[in-house]
Amino acid sequence: MTITLAVDCMGGDHGPAVVVPAALEFLDRDRDCAVILVGRAADLQPYLAKADPALAGRWSVQHASEVVDMHDPLATALRIKKDSSMRVMANLVKEGRADGAVSAGNTGALMAVSRFVLKTLPGIDRPAIATTLPTLRGHTYVLDLGANVDCAPEHLLQFGIMGAMLAAALEHDERPSVGLLNIGAEEIKGNEVVKRAGELLKDSGLNFIGNVEGDDIYQGTADVVVCDGFVGNVALKTSEGLARMIGTFLREEFSRNLLTRIAGLAALPVLKAFKARVDPRRYNGASLLGLKGVVVKSHGSADVFAYRHALEQAAEAARQKLPEKIAARMAAVRPAPTLCD
Amino acid sequence: MTITLAVDCMGGDHGPAVVVPAALEFLDRDRDCAVILVGRAADLQPYLAKADPALAGRWSVQHASEVVDMHDPLATALRIKKDSSMRVMANLVKEGRADGAVSAGNTGALMAVSRFVLKTLPGIDRPAIATTLPTLRGHTYVLDLGANVDCAPEHLLQFGIMGAMLAAALEHDERPSVGLLNIGAEEIKGNEVVKRAGELLKDSGLNFIGNVEGDDIYQGTADVVVCDGFVGNVALKTSEGLARMIGTFLREEFSRNLLTRIAGLAALPVLKAFKARVDPRRYNGASLLGLKGVVVKSHGSADVFAYRHALEQAAEAARQKLPEKIAARMAAVRPAPTLCD
Repeated sequence: MTITLAVDCMGGDHGPAVVVPAALEFLDRDRDCAVILVGRAADLQPYLAKADPALAGRWSVQHASEVVDMHDPLATALRIKKDSSMRVMANLVKEGRADGAVSAGNTGALMAVSRFVLKTLPGIDRPAIATTLPTLRGHTYVLDLGANVDCAPEHLLQFGIMGAMLAAALEHDERPSVGLLNIGAEEIKGNEVVKRAGELLKDSGLNFIGNVEGDDIYQGTADVVVCDGFVGNVALKTSEGLARMIGTFLREEFSRNLLTRIAGLAALPVLKAFKARVDPRRYNGASLLGLKGVVVKSHGSADVFAYRHALEQAAEAARQKLPEKIAARMAAVRPAPTLCD
Repeated sequence: MTITLAVDCMGGDHGPAVVVPAALEFLDRDRDCAVILVGRAADLQPYLAKADPALAGRWSVQHASEVVDMHDPLATALRIKKDSSMRVMANLVKEGRADGAVSAGNTGALMAVSRFVLKTLPGIDRPAIATTLPTLRGHTYVLDLGANVDCAPEHLLQFGIMGAMLAAALEHDERPSVGLLNIGAEEIKGNEVVKRAGELLKDSGLNFIGNVEGDDIYQGTADVVVCDGFVGNVALKTSEGLARMIGTFLREEFSRNLLTRIAGLAALPVLKAFKARVDPRRYNGASLLGLKGVVVKSHGSADVFAYRHALEQAAEAARQKLPEKIAARMAAVRPAPTLCD
């Protein structure tokens, strides 16, 4: 079965200069895929001129006259720019012409447009954003990362279900373990919302392993870590800041004087291998979950390598029919008494 | 003026084996200080036998027959073990025989006992826990770190005031900048509690710089970062987990084969210099703020070097009369209309 992705070529810091080459590289590596490149046709053309003729027939251009700017208010993205590349991309999924969508545009706008066009799945109150983080044992899915800042326990339960289905789809692991991010492993710990969410998750039929703490994320204690969007966003950005600081300190120490520079040269292959292991580009692509369609958000500063990863992730989620799986799991859990109180 | 610290010698993973030598080292380096070593006298004796005679007169032992265990419920620490080293230590501050206290015992028990014995300052609803984290520019104070999981905006305001006074006392900086941890720099971002806290902080007379994000912590954007205890605890533990993972990956890459081991040897001085810069031992000592007395919590696994840092921090906070400064600042802000609604 061919998977077709609608790709917003205008989003992100680099627009088509990164997105089009990434899409072509993606097609070259995955013969079962096709892409619809969405954006201003004239802007895409220069990057398509060099396309390998062998890829012909698997890519097409869908013109969209407008672009959602990083600073556009949500109202502009939703109500004014109706021919934006982001909106046209979402419409392609809605109309069934594409199996999934990828954009590096403004996260808030992407969530609003996707939700408006595609709608949420039955039983899902709020879509969530999930990403992958590297761990000592492999990697872990964490959600929500900022779409929902004031969460009820039922929302955290829904995040657990969506995260488990995402991990199941992308890792081919039927019973991924789910942990609830808390400030202590004991059940009595945490705020009221988290305590109640723990009870709901325990009764959900998921492979729920209970509370996990911040350090468990990178320990790889759970395949999926559930938290509200405020906490998830802080955890993610704090991690980014710390990783950047550590990288800066390492560089500074290795460039302190001639001797340390020589040591740096000797250690270069090792440092490169280390860097590759924590390379955030390999983890590019945050899933917008709970929508009637696959939508993946690439980091705005993604390069071709990183963007290709986001495309691969969207293709796999579409191939595994992730939205259908989430809907089925929600239907199975919905009649349970835990959701009726 | 001599500053006298009451030191709980029984807390932490190592008890008197670490605490007593750390206290003696502290006395050796700071001639204006004295310590009252609290714990089972027989357990302390072996470590005191080796004490430099020059330190005589600046240390004394206060016997306490019980020890608060890491797994003791709070009720045990509060109501049953009334002769615990932790409780006796707090009493010494309460009675004015000590100017500050340091313990490496159970954080929850230390907070409960300190609050019970010393009481909170006027205007402070809840004490908070603050620590220092290294940043690209130096270091930043972050609070709360877990004492308060369900916070109202007024509590975050109080944390801002306490954090600013702590930074002022320890950094000798009269107007430290205060940032509010949020998930976006814009004022409209965040949950309802944080939005309202931003308004209160803006009117507080503090050097409030507005919202900061997770990555700003390590960027050093603000001298003080304010958040509720749930978020602060997750940010701190996530950081610990990430730092540990990065350390593990670095070690693994350098010990992969003979060549990488040689590279590691060449890079050893550089790696050591790097490690020293992010050494968590230099940041050991979390301040319990908002109490009528100086109380500092050392990490349970602290070694002599780390524990000494906690002692130095407590001495400086006591010398700067931190509780009095917090009380004065609270009194100045209390009549403001922002706190009356």
